[in-house]
Amino acid sequence: MYKYSFYNDYSEGAHPALLELLTRTNYDQEHGYSNDSLCLQAVELIQAQIQNQQAAVHFIPGGTQTNLIALASMLRPYESVIAASTAHIAVHEAGAIEATGHKINTVCAPDGKLTPEQVLAVLVDHTDEHMVKPAVVFISNSTELGTIYRKADLEALSRVCRQFNLLLYLDGARLGCGLTARESDLTLADLSQWVDMFYIGGTKNGALMGEALVISNPNLQEHFRFHLKQHGALLAKGRLMGSQFVGLFQNNLYFDLARHANASAEHLAQGIMALGYPFLTPPATNQIFPILPDRLIESMSQFYGFYVWKKMEDNCSAVRLVTSWATPGEKVEEFLKDLRFG
Amino acid sequence: MYKYSFYNDYSEGAHPALLELLTRTNYDQEHGYSNDSLCLQAVELIQAQIQNQQAAVHFIPGGTQTNLIALASMLRPYESVIAASTAHIAVHEAGAIEATGHKINTVCAPDGKLTPEQVLAVLVDHTDEHMVKPAVVFISNSTELGTIYRKADLEALSRVCRQFNLLLYLDGARLGCGLTARESDLTLADLSQWVDMFYIGGTKNGALMGEALVISNPNLQEHFRFHLKQHGALLAKGRLMGSQFVGLFQNNLYFDLARHANASAEHLAQGIMALGYPFLTPPATNQIFPILPDRLIESMSQFYGFYVWKKMEDNCSAVRLVTSWATPGEKVEEFLKDLRFG
Amino acid sequence: MYKYSFYNDYSEGAHPALLELLTRTNYDQEHGYSNDSLCLQAVELIQAQIQNQQAAVHFIPGGTQTNLIALASMLRPYESVIAASTAHIAVHEAGAIEATGHKINTVCAPDGKLTPEQVLAVLVDHTDEHMVKPAVVFISNSTELGTIYRKADLEALSRVCRQFNLLLYLDGARLGCGLTARESDLTLADLSQWVDMFYIGGTKNGALMGEALVISNPNLQEHFRFHLKQHGALLAKGRLMGSQFVGLFQNNLYFDLARHANASAEHLAQGIMALGYPFLTPPATNQIFPILPDRLIESMSQFYGFYVWKKMEDNCSAVRLVTSWATPGEKVEEFLKDLRFG
Amino acid sequence: MYKYSFYNDYSEGAHPALLELLTRTNYDQEHGYSNDSLCLQAVELIQAQIQNQQAAVHFIPGGTQTNLIALASMLRPYESVIAASTAHIAVHEAGAIEATGHKINTVCAPDGKLTPEQVLAVLVDHTDEHMVKPAVVFISNSTELGTIYRKADLEALSRVCRQFNLLLYLDGARLGCGLTARESDLTLADLSQWVDMFYIGGTKNGALMGEALVISNPNLQEHFRFHLKQHGALLAKGRLMGSQFVGLFQNNLYFDLARHANASAEHLAQGIMALGYPFLTPPATNQIFPILPDRLIESMSQFYGFYVWKKMEDNCSAVRLVTSWATPGEKVEEFLKDLRFG
Repeated sequence: MYKYSFYNDYSEGAHPALLELLTRTNYDQEHGYSNDSLCLQAVELIQAQIQNQQAAVHFIPGGTQTNLIALASMLRPYESVIAASTAHIAVHEAGAIEATGHKINTVCAPDGKLTPEQVLAVLVDHTDEHMVKPAVVFISNSTELGTIYRKADLEALSRVCRQFNLLLYLDGARLGCGLTARESDLTLADLSQWVDMFYIGGTKNGALMGEALVISNPNLQEHFRFHLKQHGALLAKGRLMGSQFVGLFQNNLYFDLARHANASAEHLAQGIMALGYPFLTPPATNQIFPILPDRLIESMSQFYGFYVWKKMEDNCSAVRLVTSWATPGEKVEEFLKDLRFG
Repeated sequence: MYKYSFYNDYSEGAHPALLELLTRTNYDQEHGYSNDSLCLQAVELIQAQIQNQQAAVHFIPGGTQTNLIALASMLRPYESVIAASTAHIAVHEAGAIEATGHKINTVCAPDGKLTPEQVLAVLVDHTDEHMVKPAVVFISNSTELGTIYRKADLEALSRVCRQFNLLLYLDGARLGCGLTARESDLTLADLSQWVDMFYIGGTKNGALMGEALVISNPNLQEHFRFHLKQHGALLAKGRLMGSQFVGLFQNNLYFDLARHANASAEHLAQGIMALGYPFLTPPATNQIFPILPDRLIESMSQFYGFYVWKKMEDNCSAVRLVTSWATPGEKVEEFLKDLRFG
Repeated sequence: MYKYSFYNDYSEGAHPALLELLTRTNYDQEHGYSNDSLCLQAVELIQAQIQNQQAAVHFIPGGTQTNLIALASMLRPYESVIAASTAHIAVHEAGAIEATGHKINTVCAPDGKLTPEQVLAVLVDHTDEHMVKPAVVFISNSTELGTIYRKADLEALSRVCRQFNLLLYLDGARLGCGLTARESDLTLADLSQWVDMFYIGGTKNGALMGEALVISNPNLQEHFRFHLKQHGALLAKGRLMGSQFVGLFQNNLYFDLARHANASAEHLAQGIMALGYPFLTPPATNQIFPILPDRLIESMSQFYGFYVWKKMEDNCSAVRLVTSWATPGEKVEEFLKDLRFG
Repeated sequence: MYKYSFYNDYSEGAHPALLELLTRTNYDQEHGYSNDSLCLQAVELIQAQIQNQQAAVHFIPGGTQTNLIALASMLRPYESVIAASTAHIAVHEAGAIEATGHKINTVCAPDGKLTPEQVLAVLVDHTDEHMVKPAVVFISNSTELGTIYRKADLEALSRVCRQFNLLLYLDGARLGCGLTARESDLTLADLSQWVDMFYIGGTKNGALMGEALVISNPNLQEHFRFHLKQHGALLAKGRLMGSQFVGLFQNNLYFDLARHANASAEHLAQGIMALGYPFLTPPATNQIFPILPDRLIESMSQFYGFYVWKKMEDNCSAVRLVTSWATPGEKVEEFLKDLRFG
């Protein structure tokens, strides 16, 4: 077995406060399908955080399901979604978006972020009814490459979307780490203002499971529970998701957990930099991509779990190291020590 | 608030043994997407129960999602599924099956059960390529009306399916109660023999969430995880479902919980019968449908949660009372006492 | 070979005037995809006939394709369409509507016509997001059973639809015969007023192929060509359909051809009645359903093509006889003579 | 109006022999839905041409419809199709393939042709159930850029497909021109041997409308008419398509028409080359892409219809000129003369 796995941020279960809340409320009889008191409380906590009482909030078991439901609800049959070619929906959802009938127009974006210019270029290329009609822009924060959107990035993108009648959707599987990154100047309230729909990821930030989808654009809220039901996302015991998000948002635990993950990654990154290794993208959140000699990767991989991300030149490769709310400081230290003596 | 809710069998959380297991394994680092040690152990426990080591077993968050994935995986684009007009997929899944592209051929079945004759009648009606081609028969056990299939029923249906090249699928949302009903002579091993695909419902039998889909027909097993992923059913922390089913099957807890629910319903039914009230369908499992005077229903509904199911003659209605693994004996007593003095 | 086939109204090719127009315009260079001068002229002719310059008109190769595109364009993913259980979309389109993701809520309607009460009953049954949301009412005129809607029928249905925010769609595969039936008091202009979308069938009324879809509700017109293209209905040589409809509507040929078909059927029906045979539904258009002794059916079927529609009591069956724009009077006479001496 | 339109190869109607056959058979009573004697005869003629009596042949109104039906019939829900990024299905079908639920994996192919290496690279990238599973390779001949596959190209691609269990599909919208190109050494019989499914395009080679889909792989033939019906491709008067293909294949007219189109394009290309202009891709079939000064394009476009394809450097652009079965030699001469004195 490994000394520690840096494979991902969902290797452990849930933060103990969430398990405790689950246990404490276990015998309360509640209504089904997210009409329970825990979900209602979680909705209110989230509305308060995003400073938008009019936002609709729904709880969905997982991220792929959230993305497919959200996008399917926003698109007419002939409409498409613009995304980075590295986007989760474009690569790692087994064609879930296409299975709802929609094309993804991919854009090459080496750092995982979309720019207004890239979006406009797609629009210019789509001229008539022989092609799909791009209607939604998909972004993630943090991105698949650990990078983040700053406030100015998001505002610029949002303005272009509104000017050209595009909806803006944000995949927040790792939103906690995105918002609490050292370089971030974005808040949940900003998202609610600039983004039409986004989700606050629970699974990768200390919950057992569950994502909170926020619909800030009122035009997109009507009849949304039909979409949830049709795709099997209305759980009979929706209370499970409600209690997770109550736990995450009642004492800012959500942000504390993300900060811990980011701090662990930063610690790791600084230690790796101190050893003189470069990075594929500048470390910003809880996913970092150091470039290491293949020989060293081989020896380290006997003791630690992580993915080799990309073959580089000179017998080196970028690896992905992911920290989480649960990463113990001593495991980071141990990794760095082993790397030094690798 | 109610003295007690008989609305359904998912009003409480999970059996404490499941929460305890969850907590105990919480910090173990596991692989994601149901490749964890808990899911693997749960698969083995279920294979042992069904006496079929070749069966594939997958864990899915909820019942609608399970049904839509299972049926979509079995059907070619032009094929349809035969079901009772009261079937969950026909009425209560917001068009989830049609959303995957498939028609449901409904059959009027007052007790919720399908017969070989009804299936054959649908086949006879579908003669050429101007119509859909029925390819799967959908049943549930227990049914939406609380009734059950006995071994002879299931064998007869299965034989007709095999003879006419139809697949047989069983929705086991309430399979525990179906199999442990007093009148039942069916086992999980029988199902594995006579049914191509079925699911063992966790949510309605004491789990926090999760259904275990069993694919006993080897021809239907290949590449199944792609179907799961495409519909968002591969949870990053699949371990959550794995641990539930380990807990349910390691000491036969699954059957004990179902027996408790059935016994509670039987107790309730006998008390109601003793008061002279008739039933819409003969009580058999944890859903019972007594026919009560509307005036009595009105007074009881101030203290107890339950659905009015169907308006009957003479100012009476059938109501649905549902018991669960968590129903306390004293609440049943209290209900009966209140009914007596209604 | 048969003396004559009464199987259907598409056994012959096209009315010679249409072939002549096709040939005359053959070498004109035209724009593709229904942007040609013939389609434009046909649109204007139809707008004039329906007395609605704001209506959008599109040409589509066949009826099933028209129905599936029209309904898919009107429905949100969770919405359904209400139709008679005998409707073409419910039985004879191989699941085409479901393949676009939508459920059909069927209503038992022995004469093939829907009433406001039947529509309301479906609405009452659909109460929440666990079920689909009915959003469109589908009717046909004439119906699958040869019956027609009178003006009062259509108005009543339309008023209920508007009151309950349902769209009304009319399948006009046999609209010519429906509107020119002796009992009909409806016009194309009435349809444009009371129906949101409908099609004027060409294939079954003398055209080589092609249906003209009329979108009278302006809210449903936007971006419609995307729907056409996505389902493969934008033909490169859309001119073929344009020229058919120019031919059909420039001298009222459309109505003349339908009147001929109706008159032939009426002639046939009167001859059969004179022999004392009853009918399944009162003869009204070009499809009639006399009930004949099985023995007589057997002998007649050696000389004439027709479908046995429904087994009746006393060794009799209803058969379907269909006349068309091309049915020669002498063939009707010959059939009646043979029937008399059958 | 233009002196002549080189916009495309479907600006005129049909070759007069096809109209003549249509008229001659117009009053014959035929069975509907391509069960008529003309379709049967066309199937036999095509089976003879491809030297494969076991091939199934179906007639479909248009190319986009053919592609979407063919691909949907070949793919399981989680499977994808590999295509050039310029492929018709990837750009110009309004998301028709995605609307059937499937992703297209695009490959950058400047000349519009796919190589075995490109196909293998896509396979290597798709490793597990988090991604789609590539299952079909889509090519066209001639391609969107007028280029062709030679026998060795096709064999190499086909061998790789068979080795890796991929199906090979060929879009033959312009197959006539592809096979009769001066450089081509391929025959219809070769296609039937090396390709699992392909279509012989009628619309762009002298027919009023209609494409003949050939299924040479017997495993893909079963129940195919259900697919046709479900997508609205079974026309009631399928005879129209049957008669077109009888006309095209009874005297090798199909190849004669394509040769005329190619010869016209070659004439045009040689004239343009003689004036010293370069080409975007080497002229091979009836679509040629000369690079002309923008000033000259502007003046020529007042008199001739054609598309500007791509902006090039030095104030030049590539234009697309398309010839057809109907292009008169004198129009080519006139174009060249005007170009010379432009």
